[in-house]
Amino acid sequence: MKRVAVLGATGLVGRTFVKLLGGHPWFKVEKLIASEKSAGKKYGDLVEDSPEEFRDYYVISLNEFLENPGVDLVFNALPASISRDVEEKLAQEIPVFTNARAHRYDEDVPILVPEVNKDHLKLVEVQRKRRGWKGFIVTNPNCSTAILTLSLAPLRNFGIKKVRVATMQAISGAGFSGLSAYAIQDNVIPFISGEEWKIENESKKIMGKLKGDEIEPASFDVIAIATRVPVIHGHTEAVFVELENPDIKSIREAIENFDPLKDLKLPSYEKPIVYTEIPQPRLHRDRGRGLTVTVGRLERTSEGVKYVALGHNLVRGAAGGSVLNAELAYKLKII
Amino acid sequence: MKRVAVLGATGLVGRTFVKLLGGHPWFKVEKLIASEKSAGKKYGDLVEDSPEEFRDYYVISLNEFLENPGVDLVFNALPASISRDVEEKLAQEIPVFTNARAHRYDEDVPILVPEVNKDHLKLVEVQRKRRGWKGFIVTNPNCSTAILTLSLAPLRNFGIKKVRVATMQAISGAGFSGLSAYAIQDNVIPFISGEEWKIENESKKIMGKLKGDEIEPASFDVIAIATRVPVIHGHTEAVFVELENPDIKSIREAIENFDPLKDLKLPSYEKPIVYTEIPQPRLHRDRGRGLTVTVGRLERTSEGVKYVALGHNLVRGAAGGSVLNAELAYKLKII
Amino acid sequence: MKRVAVLGATGLVGRTFVKLLGGHPWFKVEKLIASEKSAGKKYGDLVEDSPEEFRDYYVISLNEFLENPGVDLVFNALPASISRDVEEKLAQEIPVFTNARAHRYDEDVPILVPEVNKDHLKLVEVQRKRRGWKGFIVTNPNCSTAILTLSLAPLRNFGIKKVRVATMQAISGAGFSGLSAYAIQDNVIPFISGEEWKIENESKKIMGKLKGDEIEPASFDVIAIATRVPVIHGHTEAVFVELENPDIKSIREAIENFDPLKDLKLPSYEKPIVYTEIPQPRLHRDRGRGLTVTVGRLERTSEGVKYVALGHNLVRGAAGGSVLNAELAYKLKII
Amino acid sequence: MKRVAVLGATGLVGRTFVKLLGGHPWFKVEKLIASEKSAGKKYGDLVEDSPEEFRDYYVISLNEFLENPGVDLVFNALPASISRDVEEKLAQEIPVFTNARAHRYDEDVPILVPEVNKDHLKLVEVQRKRRGWKGFIVTNPNCSTAILTLSLAPLRNFGIKKVRVATMQAISGAGFSGLSAYAIQDNVIPFISGEEWKIENESKKIMGKLKGDEIEPASFDVIAIATRVPVIHGHTEAVFVELENPDIKSIREAIENFDPLKDLKLPSYEKPIVYTEIPQPRLHRDRGRGLTVTVGRLERTSEGVKYVALGHNLVRGAAGGSVLNAELAYKLKII
Repeated sequence: MKRVAVLGATGLVGRTFVKLLGGHPWFKVEKLIASEKSAGKKYGDLVEDSPEEFRDYYVISLNEFLENPGVDLVFNALPASISRDVEEKLAQEIPVFTNARAHRYDEDVPILVPEVNKDHLKLVEVQRKRRGWKGFIVTNPNCSTAILTLSLAPLRNFGIKKVRVATMQAISGAGFSGLSAYAIQDNVIPFISGEEWKIENESKKIMGKLKGDEIEPASFDVIAIATRVPVIHGHTEAVFVELENPDIKSIREAIENFDPLKDLKLPSYEKPIVYTEIPQPRLHRDRGRGLTVTVGRLERTSEGVKYVALGHNLVRGAAGGSVLNAELAYKLKII
Repeated sequence: MKRVAVLGATGLVGRTFVKLLGGHPWFKVEKLIASEKSAGKKYGDLVEDSPEEFRDYYVISLNEFLENPGVDLVFNALPASISRDVEEKLAQEIPVFTNARAHRYDEDVPILVPEVNKDHLKLVEVQRKRRGWKGFIVTNPNCSTAILTLSLAPLRNFGIKKVRVATMQAISGAGFSGLSAYAIQDNVIPFISGEEWKIENESKKIMGKLKGDEIEPASFDVIAIATRVPVIHGHTEAVFVELENPDIKSIREAIENFDPLKDLKLPSYEKPIVYTEIPQPRLHRDRGRGLTVTVGRLERTSEGVKYVALGHNLVRGAAGGSVLNAELAYKLKII
Repeated sequence: MKRVAVLGATGLVGRTFVKLLGGHPWFKVEKLIASEKSAGKKYGDLVEDSPEEFRDYYVISLNEFLENPGVDLVFNALPASISRDVEEKLAQEIPVFTNARAHRYDEDVPILVPEVNKDHLKLVEVQRKRRGWKGFIVTNPNCSTAILTLSLAPLRNFGIKKVRVATMQAISGAGFSGLSAYAIQDNVIPFISGEEWKIENESKKIMGKLKGDEIEPASFDVIAIATRVPVIHGHTEAVFVELENPDIKSIREAIENFDPLKDLKLPSYEKPIVYTEIPQPRLHRDRGRGLTVTVGRLERTSEGVKYVALGHNLVRGAAGGSVLNAELAYKLKII
Repeated sequence: MKRVAVLGATGLVGRTFVKLLGGHPWFKVEKLIASEKSAGKKYGDLVEDSPEEFRDYYVISLNEFLENPGVDLVFNALPASISRDVEEKLAQEIPVFTNARAHRYDEDVPILVPEVNKDHLKLVEVQRKRRGWKGFIVTNPNCSTAILTLSLAPLRNFGIKKVRVATMQAISGAGFSGLSAYAIQDNVIPFISGEEWKIENESKKIMGKLKGDEIEPASFDVIAIATRVPVIHGHTEAVFVELENPDIKSIREAIENFDPLKDLKLPSYEKPIVYTEIPQPRLHRDRGRGLTVTVGRLERTSEGVKYVALGHNLVRGAAGGSVLNAELAYKLKII
């Protein structure tokens, strides 16, 4: 059993980490880290719906934790602003699996979606070598990007030429109080700071090829418009894909049969994509314990295909993806 | 003053017609037509928020009306299923301005958006000649299409090559009881029957060129994904446009200066487009009494531009567009 | 194992029955009954989120079922309008546990909430004797009433003198399409047909005393105002109770310790009430698999107490309550 | 024309003041006061939907304003925390009409609802005398209380003995960012800090009798439970009233005929109550430009009546009530 710490354990993503790690066969959560304000309090007193097994954990402050981590592995749900330094300090000794964007765009840090680009995990060696670390940093993508790239993965063999995507993102993506009720009630807000840039750039890195020590970004462009809608969990994405070979029947089969890591038997693994004609956040966000992306409305267009993809932003799009990353690393004996 | 009848006056679009026509300087509503069930009742008893001036109107049944129309002009908000026959019967004698889709795809019937294709109104002559009618039929487009084509109009001079659009449509687009609360609460439903086909095809007809007696559809493709979101009024559209000449500064100016019918002084006319950085249905749907489309988030992409457009589906996308069509016809002395 | 049929298995309450009965240790669902239109189809094709074990069940029409029930027990989720005849026909031979209101107000039919009035189950004998039935009918109360009476039960010893309750009821209480999205979006609708009468009268019957063959209704009045709010599941109730002995500390203890059937070990039994300071439908409706009512905001008033109660309308307020009724009957060897 | 300043002009209540005062026949807004951060900016750049006439006003900081008020009258929409000192300083010279609660519970300060307790305005003389002020402070009640007391006013002649009220309050009552979307989406939150106390106590003061220099609070108790619901504007209240003489027919008439200040011809005055069978926030909050309270669902109970009342929290419940207060004072030549 690897001893694990969750950083930022009381936020929305942090809570999701804690829930997913409850009773995990390989990882044992030993430390829950939160702000000074929460330090010293019981996790169950801070988080009403805490799993039973963590109710009596005393939350530790970040500073206290950094002095003496004492774990084998860290999951990070801290805000990006403070994550860069924290992650670099920890990675000198310990593997860090992080939802923060701080290191996503570093050349030697992979943005990992196990079903899409598991070979990028090799960057970890580059990282160690270059930086002289014992640990390393593995990031998961931005929530919308995780869902998008997973839905695009089965289309790779059909020659992706260009992708346009409009997202309809859930409230929980903004955190507990990141979005005011007055702003979103009976409304759509077609602006999420930095989101479109992330989708456009992270997708190309994730779907790029590892050549030697470097990732060559995917050759196709991604153009995104991101909106917020009054839905509690679950990002919905309308996707237009230009393809070289838009054989709709084969594409449908490729989507339905997409199951690349089945044989690895990772504890959190679920069939990554399920096809349902009309994907809907309230109905399908919890599919596969939140790790399954639902794809539907697939249709041939004059240039390729269009479809709708949907996934749980806190699970597949954040904590769940990160846990899957760690499971892959464990299985491949990288940790 | 033209004497006017509103068909389907108790539905959501019909009510909007009635509201917009209250106190109109050119059109005087004389008859309100609804189902057998409503006939004989006072309009104010059927429609809680009826304008004062129509409260005491007795609603007439369709059959009674058809026996003896006795008006100069008809606005139709009936369902498509019964509209084909009704409109053809009336058009033999009277001009019909209709929100129903029944005749939109007839070769000699224009789908009219005054600010976009006012010359298509000439089809009315073709229609009269071919069909031997004294009246005629003028349709307005599907709600999403009205908003989309208006937002595209200022981009025409920049060489539109292709359009992809994802719509986020309001509940009122489905009528009073067309959508169950259980279905849409905390949800997005990425399916609206027939909608994508309408957007893709109506747009091409509207933005096509009138050559002799025929419309040559626009040469560019439109690819649409339509979704329903939990918003009461106002359709939001994420639009990706490929352009031959994506000069972003000139495009922004063209959008802000777009005001082609200003000089006609139509009573319902409002500046058709206002640019606001983040268009939002709750904040902007009522702009220009619901006739103004709000465009925002305009950005250069590798292939052209992306932007967000927003309009009131019941006004600009239905009754308001139709009233504007009639005003244009009146101004041009076609009625 | 008792063989069980679920009537009205495709509606919202019916689906909840089916879900709750999946893998039940005492009851084995053998027949799923729905409308003619659904008959002959697989349950999994009609109900997207059907439990795996029922996906391949062929749905049977009501007529076919009535000809030859062939089960030991029936759960009824049919609409009230057709339930009276169906239930009486079936009860001649088989016990019927029903969510329909058709028989709730019959003198010899109990409205049962096991934790509140389990002795009322004795009415079954009166019923059999009077009506000459081998089976019987046991009803569960209206959804709001189930939650209210459960929350009132611990207050009995403090001398309830009068109850006023304002309900804020969820969308799912109106069924799949019983409520239009246009009606409830950004709105509260303070009218639910028949609801207030049901709450006021059913509560008095449930909290009444069985004297010989009859129930003497509770002596206190209940006055209700029922409203619908834009929440998917979970009825919230604001309750004002006049008490003879408003000892707030003892009342709080009575609520927290309320657990009258713990020793019966019914398979669906959960602690019926959990105290949480601010009960909220999205956070607490699924507590105890939907069978636990959350009570909070308890405060002393000049006349007694006020508090807020919350429960899952489809589980505690409908199917779950009915399953608990059947479990009680089974445990007491009445079936 | 009285020269007017609006304090806290950029918040939700402040904006409502500004909107209501645009084009006012008696009051001319000369100064808009907001935080340091906003000072020096144009109002139209801070408030997207500013009325045209105020777009180019430069916002002034509170400190700058206090140095040299230079107006005849102040409307205050500042938070309670800073209002006490500010109001007392200003009232030394100028009349202050305030939405803040800071002074509501002072013996010599009226909580004024013109249609309910206009004679309480006489407290202003007591205030001036006691405090040696040239100006004075007049408060309007908490939003829920304004709606409640107005709905209770016509019942006064029927002997109010006790009132229980459950409120369903809108999001805008919490200000722009007072409520997180994550908290209220698909939820009801039955807790609003301090709200129940305010309703219970302010109602008694407002409906009390002025005897000499003092208000004797109403003899009846008010017991309140306050909840927040996902509605943008409009507080709905379920009200149970014990009456000595519950003559339902006369009560209905008293409600429908309630129009006590009609003859004063105050510019903002609207019929204070309109009876509609099912009051609903989305449909009726804007009635009478937001100043009319809608009452409905009136029914006889065993002890009196129950009904539902609804009003716009920002207008009748805040800025609109305050403007009406100033208009009354002006008409009565108190300012």
